[in-house]
Amino acid sequence: MVRVLTIDDIRRITHQHGLQNCFAELTQALNDDFARWDEFEKTPRHATHFSHGVIELMPICDKEYYAFKYVNGHPYNPKNQKQTVTAVGMLSEIEHGYPLMISEMTVLTAIRTAVTSALAAQYLTRKSSRSMAMIGCGSQAEFQVLAMHVACGIDRIHYFDIDANAMKKFADNLAAFSLDLVAFDNTESAIADVDVITTATADKQRNKILRDDWVHDGVHINGVGGDCPGKSELGQTLLERCKIVVEYLPQTKIEGEIQNLTTQEIHAELWEVITGHKPGRENDKEVTLFDSVGFALEDYTILRYFYRLAEEYGIGDVMHLVPAIDDPKDLFGILCS
Amino acid sequence: MVRVLTIDDIRRITHQHGLQNCFAELTQALNDDFARWDEFEKTPRHATHFSHGVIELMPICDKEYYAFKYVNGHPYNPKNQKQTVTAVGMLSEIEHGYPLMISEMTVLTAIRTAVTSALAAQYLTRKSSRSMAMIGCGSQAEFQVLAMHVACGIDRIHYFDIDANAMKKFADNLAAFSLDLVAFDNTESAIADVDVITTATADKQRNKILRDDWVHDGVHINGVGGDCPGKSELGQTLLERCKIVVEYLPQTKIEGEIQNLTTQEIHAELWEVITGHKPGRENDKEVTLFDSVGFALEDYTILRYFYRLAEEYGIGDVMHLVPAIDDPKDLFGILCS
Repeated sequence: MVRVLTIDDIRRITHQHGLQNCFAELTQALNDDFARWDEFEKTPRHATHFSHGVIELMPICDKEYYAFKYVNGHPYNPKNQKQTVTAVGMLSEIEHGYPLMISEMTVLTAIRTAVTSALAAQYLTRKSSRSMAMIGCGSQAEFQVLAMHVACGIDRIHYFDIDANAMKKFADNLAAFSLDLVAFDNTESAIADVDVITTATADKQRNKILRDDWVHDGVHINGVGGDCPGKSELGQTLLERCKIVVEYLPQTKIEGEIQNLTTQEIHAELWEVITGHKPGRENDKEVTLFDSVGFALEDYTILRYFYRLAEEYGIGDVMHLVPAIDDPKDLFGILCS
Repeated sequence: MVRVLTIDDIRRITHQHGLQNCFAELTQALNDDFARWDEFEKTPRHATHFSHGVIELMPICDKEYYAFKYVNGHPYNPKNQKQTVTAVGMLSEIEHGYPLMISEMTVLTAIRTAVTSALAAQYLTRKSSRSMAMIGCGSQAEFQVLAMHVACGIDRIHYFDIDANAMKKFADNLAAFSLDLVAFDNTESAIADVDVITTATADKQRNKILRDDWVHDGVHINGVGGDCPGKSELGQTLLERCKIVVEYLPQTKIEGEIQNLTTQEIHAELWEVITGHKPGRENDKEVTLFDSVGFALEDYTILRYFYRLAEEYGIGDVMHLVPAIDDPKDLFGILCS
């Protein structure tokens, strides 16, 4: 039997368990999984490109569980009232190869992306950090804010988007949380006086959302929007000033901000900082950058986490997607009964 | 919304539509899809090997649909009352990348494997063929018999398995069909006087199920059991005598019977025979072999076919696995409502 989690099931789980509890526990779970980096069998994602989008399969496993995600990226979907990105994921057990759970992953991807940013921020922000500028108020924005709030104590949020409706939606959705929300009408003012800058803009082009001379010393930049070839947010001058941490270098150098770099040394992969192989932030002056693109390990972590919660709360449909028969040789009998 | 098909749903569809109708229509659908071979984007399967099994992702697409299958292969599973192979598949639309259907595929894989064998047999058996020896009465056996019956008019079945219980199960399951079933207690006698020999045995080793001097001229061999590295059923002398047709050479030379060949020329890929690029059977003397390993195109065909039937009969749960929201930027709102 396979547990199937719909979007309503994910909502039900987060309501019962508490959304902020989920973010806090997931930050710890991700930390623990990144810390055992060598135990995972990692492969580049399998991507099929079309003129108008991409479909990818992202598998990963350790000795106990195999996880993969199906995810599409279709930049023109919003013009047809559809999500740019949707995803479905699966978790199975290595021992016998049977699927355990199939879950919606559009929402789970948004959560795990934000939690990964927050995890990186725990190692890269100044300890005194309390404020963040959110540049881009699209579908990832509130998740980022809440993850940073829970994991790093960020509670003052400057926000800006070129789309006023997106700014309103953002403020409405976050009104229920203990946050000090301040709207701005341009990026330069929004980032002038903050500890963390998160960029999560959407256009598929090489943008320069942050001008180098706007970014003051000591800030941590959480670059979320640049996540595929030809889509980036930061200019080369700024990148060369940053201490850069990535998830998985073979993937990030193709998909992340660093696709625009030619010579720059990348400081570390996130697991190296978490395990102490390399330092995180070393002083209050340096500008740090987490160049987020999303990695299969994060899907593994959140699938395992929601599988446990779904079992605990008895949420989701348990469906007959794998034969349960006494005689393994009698597969045809299934159709005869 | 995504349609989810369980094993019960597949049974319901085959009952309502008629199992033999399904086999007949699928043979035609597979023929049509193999005939437009160049329209498919084909990639090797993504396999992760463990000491005790394998987990694979098999993607394929044309300009309209993307299909993939998750499938495991765990040879020791039957000792724990589990299937060696289970599978789950997904169909999605290229246009916007949204999933359309998730289906059990353990049963669907058995069906599509048998139908592919029957399709190949239409081009490779002697026209007068009416009898088949079924060597190995495991989980694939009845499917093979029924597909050959429907597509090629085979109605006399000689069968043998080293497991007497498997032979009984096989005969019981096929009792309802218009077949002349004759049990044998060894392979040599079972194949002595038939037009087609199907081998579908299970052990992961290099077996020689058929001795070359047992195989008479003019027979068609449908080799199903040799389907992964180190698992084959036919010896080199016999292989060198055969006109060999495969599904997709880059895959079959690793997984099929031909993994044991060093110099032999392979006659054709199945699509070449179907489109007339290369001949099928050319006379009543030659021994033909379809070296079946299973290819992603066959999953594509059966997923599309069952998707259409499921829609037509209104079978399956239509589930909220993808966000349906008016504002594509308001993903977080899903968790607030």
